[in-house]
Amino acid sequence: MRATRLAVSPLRLPRRRRGADFLEMDPSFEFLEKAGKGAVSFGIGQPDFSPPGEVLEALRTVGAEALKYTPPLGLPELREALAGYLSEKYGVDVKPSEVAVTPGATAAVFASLVLLVRGRARVVVQDPGFPMYDDVARFAGGRVVYAYSGIEESFEWSAESIAGRLGEGGVAVLNFPNNPTGSLAPRGLLEELGGLAARKGFYVVSDEVYEDFVYEGSHESVLQVPELRERSVYVGSFSKTWGLAGLRLGYVVAPRRLVERLEAVAVNVYGSPPSPAQLAALRALDHGLGWFSGVLSEYRRRRDALLEELSKVEGVELYRPRGAFYVYPRVRGLLKRLGVGSSRELAESLLQAGVVVLPGDAYSGRAGREHVRLSYALPVESIREGVRRIRAFVEEAACARRKRGA
Amino acid sequence: MRATRLAVSPLRLPRRRRGADFLEMDPSFEFLEKAGKGAVSFGIGQPDFSPPGEVLEALRTVGAEALKYTPPLGLPELREALAGYLSEKYGVDVKPSEVAVTPGATAAVFASLVLLVRGRARVVVQDPGFPMYDDVARFAGGRVVYAYSGIEESFEWSAESIAGRLGEGGVAVLNFPNNPTGSLAPRGLLEELGGLAARKGFYVVSDEVYEDFVYEGSHESVLQVPELRERSVYVGSFSKTWGLAGLRLGYVVAPRRLVERLEAVAVNVYGSPPSPAQLAALRALDHGLGWFSGVLSEYRRRRDALLEELSKVEGVELYRPRGAFYVYPRVRGLLKRLGVGSSRELAESLLQAGVVVLPGDAYSGRAGREHVRLSYALPVESIREGVRRIRAFVEEAACARRKRGA
Repeated sequence: MRATRLAVSPLRLPRRRRGADFLEMDPSFEFLEKAGKGAVSFGIGQPDFSPPGEVLEALRTVGAEALKYTPPLGLPELREALAGYLSEKYGVDVKPSEVAVTPGATAAVFASLVLLVRGRARVVVQDPGFPMYDDVARFAGGRVVYAYSGIEESFEWSAESIAGRLGEGGVAVLNFPNNPTGSLAPRGLLEELGGLAARKGFYVVSDEVYEDFVYEGSHESVLQVPELRERSVYVGSFSKTWGLAGLRLGYVVAPRRLVERLEAVAVNVYGSPPSPAQLAALRALDHGLGWFSGVLSEYRRRRDALLEELSKVEGVELYRPRGAFYVYPRVRGLLKRLGVGSSRELAESLLQAGVVVLPGDAYSGRAGREHVRLSYALPVESIREGVRRIRAFVEEAACARRKRGA
Repeated sequence: MRATRLAVSPLRLPRRRRGADFLEMDPSFEFLEKAGKGAVSFGIGQPDFSPPGEVLEALRTVGAEALKYTPPLGLPELREALAGYLSEKYGVDVKPSEVAVTPGATAAVFASLVLLVRGRARVVVQDPGFPMYDDVARFAGGRVVYAYSGIEESFEWSAESIAGRLGEGGVAVLNFPNNPTGSLAPRGLLEELGGLAARKGFYVVSDEVYEDFVYEGSHESVLQVPELRERSVYVGSFSKTWGLAGLRLGYVVAPRRLVERLEAVAVNVYGSPPSPAQLAALRALDHGLGWFSGVLSEYRRRRDALLEELSKVEGVELYRPRGAFYVYPRVRGLLKRLGVGSSRELAESLLQAGVVVLPGDAYSGRAGREHVRLSYALPVESIREGVRRIRAFVEEAACARRKRGA
């Protein structure tokens, strides 16, 4: 017996990653920090408009009640207002008891995944996709499976690609309009997933924070799919549509039993959402979204300008996004022209040229090295100037390379 | 071999608790909800005063910058202001890079424990203590060990009771002034723990949100113990001292390497702290704490009134709290007089009498059944009226019982 014991290798296995190790910085942060003065930044993830004056005014007229805690799930009047707002918006019946207010959509996604990912459950995330889903799913103990869709498929995901490997207790994280690609959920996808979720017993977390940034086609919400209502968490936010990112206010709609469990998570993770923000949000909902059509046409104009400019750059393949405010082109040809190995290197070089674009590897392990993400939450003139800089840089670098090669 | 296999019992073990199961509602919530109209509530966990007008004014004069995201660790100017404020307050040298702003102290404690509790590390929490430490430590995978101190020991903890069972990678959660007991860290405790932490390799998370509510003796911070600076996370808040609970703003001071890791946790858990609150907090720090002495003498008056009134109730044993704003008496004799099995039953009965006190089992598994917690964050007249109701109820119930017994 002794000999057997001694035979066990004394070598230590590499330290296993656990829990908090999976919570990493979005790799795009470093690029935003590196941007020099005067740089045109396509790295921005928040809208640049202000909401109607009344909303800022609401924030400015809060009384002493803004200094007190609200309940962990938010002010009852705000939960009620959100239930009404979403019921009308999507033609469905959302009850206040199914709504929880959270300090931003990030906290909503975090809390939802922590609740739904049980043990070593499978969690399907989209590739390309926003990096936090992956990180938080692993943090919660889940085994992450990527559902890949490339530019050749117009970043369209099939129900099979998402639900194929999910069974009882699995979780699918959806994000439409999608960051970084700007694609929408293909017609029928959610219905199909609803049927599969009911049959196979998995859950859906649907991050719909870009729901109002839709330029062509239309956005469908999990709220509209009866079979998903019992098996999904809808996540919305005041950050994008309302231009209120700094207030940190998001919300979920989920089956009541989940909302009740979410209350316990809230108490232990953040206590309650901020009060001044909730009071301002109440006024925002009261004011309504009539003013948003102006923002939308401006953002459409920006998208079109960015696509137009980028189409002039040789070696850039474009998918025309239908929602959100990002373009996620493939730059394979460009990398080849420049003799550059990855989009990260390209992005690094472009920093020198006074332009910030984000390397695609933050959003996709599979094809991210050949993609970059550009946000168009900036004025049309800046967009044109930025791409002009990219072109000038690229042409010069390509020439220099040809010369060296000759 | 086959027989052996079949011999294994087909019975399933009870489902193991995991992750999110440990995040539970603070059991005191239900009591707060049950309180009828006109009840005197000793259940309140937030101060009832407003901060100086300038602070509310700061909140009311925020500009459009309040609508934008701040960095995940908070506004650089606020981190700098906090570093200066704490350096002066404790006569130490805190650098802005060691400060992180969080959406409330809850998020600060959550993020700290998630970072520090590695694998199945031991986590020592005080008993009695605030329930979230226990829950979050288990959520993070830790094995919780209770360091008990009873009313006989004046709720004083020895270094041995806290660090005795901690080794490399362990974590001790401290909370002084203590909720629910109101005791302070005994002189020398922190220094001793500092030496032990350095030698044995454990960490300390020190929740000091009641640091300014000290009526006798003085509060010592982990910030003041050089050996703890490298091995501790200090947690402070604008909720209690500044009466700004609704803003959701806390902060940590930790070694820089931990602050850097905390940034990644922030990005995935809540994004960033709310902007309007940070702008108001900057103004609050600028205004300073001169005004607080008035609050402190009022709270001392309240404590004294509550102790005076409670001392008239037969069967109540009092520890005279030196900090925070809670009294945590032992009610063993009272339970006996009333023939009631636990403080929870007592608290339930008192609801009928129009008084909310919280059952001690929320704060202690060991002796909580014999304790209740009363907050004195309410006017002296309400305090006297509340205890008068308790006495009237108790005397009547005791009489009725004697009669039945006779």
